[in-house]
Amino acid sequence: MQILDGKLVAQAVKDSLKQKVDALKKEGKKAPHLAAILIGHNGASETYVASKVKTCEELGYQSTLIRFEDTVEEQVLLQQINELNADNNIHGILVQLPLPKQISEEKVINTIAAEKDVDGFHPSNMGKMIQGQPAYIPATPYGILLLLEHYKIETKGKHAVIIGRSNIVGRPISILLSQNTPTGNCTVTLCHSHTRNLKEICLQADLIVAALGKPEFLTADMVKDGAVVIDVGITRVEDKTKKKGYAIKGDVHYDTVAPKCSYITPVPGGVGAMTIAALMQNTYLAATKKQ
Amino acid sequence: MQILDGKLVAQAVKDSLKQKVDALKKEGKKAPHLAAILIGHNGASETYVASKVKTCEELGYQSTLIRFEDTVEEQVLLQQINELNADNNIHGILVQLPLPKQISEEKVINTIAAEKDVDGFHPSNMGKMIQGQPAYIPATPYGILLLLEHYKIETKGKHAVIIGRSNIVGRPISILLSQNTPTGNCTVTLCHSHTRNLKEICLQADLIVAALGKPEFLTADMVKDGAVVIDVGITRVEDKTKKKGYAIKGDVHYDTVAPKCSYITPVPGGVGAMTIAALMQNTYLAATKKQ
Repeated sequence: MQILDGKLVAQAVKDSLKQKVDALKKEGKKAPHLAAILIGHNGASETYVASKVKTCEELGYQSTLIRFEDTVEEQVLLQQINELNADNNIHGILVQLPLPKQISEEKVINTIAAEKDVDGFHPSNMGKMIQGQPAYIPATPYGILLLLEHYKIETKGKHAVIIGRSNIVGRPISILLSQNTPTGNCTVTLCHSHTRNLKEICLQADLIVAALGKPEFLTADMVKDGAVVIDVGITRVEDKTKKKGYAIKGDVHYDTVAPKCSYITPVPGGVGAMTIAALMQNTYLAATKKQ
Repeated sequence: MQILDGKLVAQAVKDSLKQKVDALKKEGKKAPHLAAILIGHNGASETYVASKVKTCEELGYQSTLIRFEDTVEEQVLLQQINELNADNNIHGILVQLPLPKQISEEKVINTIAAEKDVDGFHPSNMGKMIQGQPAYIPATPYGILLLLEHYKIETKGKHAVIIGRSNIVGRPISILLSQNTPTGNCTVTLCHSHTRNLKEICLQADLIVAALGKPEFLTADMVKDGAVVIDVGITRVEDKTKKKGYAIKGDVHYDTVAPKCSYITPVPGGVGAMTIAALMQNTYLAATKKQ
């Protein structure tokens, strides 16, 4: 069993980006500039955004953090996005999810200019991704592809089972793994809350992506020997033995599943670690397309 | 075994559209107006376009047919599309595929204004479809959904196996059947040329969509008793006993598969018959959104 080390691969991606950005600057070109919008004070969101801003600094990117209280009116937020769309100094825009109730996620995503949508959530990016046109791929699925690529895991002809059909992970990774690309050509089964016989389906899988958000859901009896297991889950579970009062759990019961796998991602340090690297990759692309 | 009668359901859809268009006209509103662009003289394309124009007439729609020789320059075609985009009297635009070599299908599709893209091929429509936002659904998958709906075939929790991953049929129907909608909530397996054990996978299916374009590919030994079988194939196979010199064959070996099925679509008279009705439905939507 080999661990797919997200920290290691993310660092390699970031090192390569840093070099490229240094080169850009030497040529007198602009560094990539990411604008992040954070609404309210949700703990996880604060952590994610802080981490994105910090990574920008590490790589020599510019970043702008714009904060709103969670009482912000939708119109004010959309106006802010439009200003960022029009600003030639901003290459990438992300609005940290989830949003407060009074704000339509759909409207927010559709308002971000597709060419600055480094989260890859805009319908036109999703559509281009489906059709195999150049597009920003959402960070989590993109991070998974980068991991598979780094470890040279052959996907062609493998049976991949995806658990969870969210627009930001399950759905796009199900599409990407089934496309005619070097990290695709899997037969893909997409499972969700209405799936019957999930255990039997998982037992057929050469590759499982667990992305349903239920801690330790995937157990050893659902995994065949030699499978590749990708754990997208990242849930805070109360744990009084920890200083913070919680532990981070994936969707995979790691201790029992890992011994059966050919490859597995740990949590933390697996897919989660890759996500920001993938976002930085998208932001770099957004910046260089303009120069 | 019950036949899913595409002709019957298509007629019901068309009858309902005709009534609605009559009502529109009585209110002094414009009838839907479809512009079709046909390039060259491919026999099948000629037949499809003629059939679309004829259906427009039957339903009281306006239609405009624009023809180019297959030597047309890309720029000329794109310019024509832009004129149709700008024309307020045109509600829907379709460019009949396939295109001659010198013309990029991607550019053509991306040039059609998304709100007039009644074929549902524009990336922004595809992306909205994925995200469950209102969108034009490509005619063939839409026709399949209308058939399932008409015959009240329960899809929730069923295992659907799709053979073929094309952007216009296999891929979108795999997405639609797995969404959280009344004609969705299937567990979906998407298969293609790199799929191993296709027979074993098909034998698990409660619903099979054969959309690979190989005549009589799906045989009885690949289908479990009671399955629903949807045949998207429509290939001309030489047949000297026929007046035209060819017969139309589906992707399913109908004579042996049909007796095992709970429901099956015939070819012709199944999915193919639904496709134009679905296109007319999209064109009606495009027209009424503007009025």
